[in-house]
Amino acid sequence: MSHRPVDLAERFEHISDLWSPKVVARLNDYEIKLVRVEGEFVWHTHEETDELFLVIDGVLTIQLRDGDVTLRPGQLYVVPRGVEHCPITDGEVRALLIEPAGVVNTGAAGGSLTATYDDSLTD
Amino acid sequence: MSHRPVDLAERFEHISDLWSPKVVARLNDYEIKLVRVEGEFVWHTHEETDELFLVIDGVLTIQLRDGDVTLRPGQLYVVPRGVEHCPITDGEVRALLIEPAGVVNTGAAGGSLTATYDDSLTD
Repeated sequence: MSHRPVDLAERFEHISDLWSPKVVARLNDYEIKLVRVEGEFVWHTHEETDELFLVIDGVLTIQLRDGDVTLRPGQLYVVPRGVEHCPITDGEVRALLIEPAGVVNTGAAGGSLTATYDDSLTD
Repeated sequence: MSHRPVDLAERFEHISDLWSPKVVARLNDYEIKLVRVEGEFVWHTHEETDELFLVIDGVLTIQLRDGDVTLRPGQLYVVPRGVEHCPITDGEVRALLIEPAGVVNTGAAGGSLTATYDDSLTD
């Protein structure tokens, strides 16, 4: 039987749209997603879960109401559940996200940046 | 308020022992762990959970009973629950693991490589 790793750089080559996380692997009832982002997102909250951000390329600032956290490649941060946040970048960022299945990227904030669920890059 | 990212390279500088995962962050009831490994581990199984491996440095082969999977930096693999596996390296490897809190590194196999729980590198 053949087992294949998930190559993050290779998977990013299949992602062209921004702010639209793609599931690349599953871990129990959690999903590992890759996302390309650029510019500013929307302020939103995930009331039911923490959310992990790991930056692969670029510089991502996660704005929080009481201060910002800036992530460079090889740095991660977990936004605690219930904490309002808004990612912003200076240039393009490639990041890995981990959260439970079913989380909507904009939380309850909605709007045009709300992404459709996409697991087409999962083996 | 100051928010700090978890810098993976910096945290690895605090890890000297091999095969001894250190918790560096939490995501709900999951833990993000860093581990330095070299050589061959023991065959074991986690009956209750999947286990995610993401290689940061080095080359890690996860031996499975029906074939191996080799991970290079920037590649990840999820060992499904109940699947017997045995990591082996050629030289030192630095990897990130994600699994639910409470998982023992050797599963039920036990032995001298069974690690003590260590979250001293968590903020």
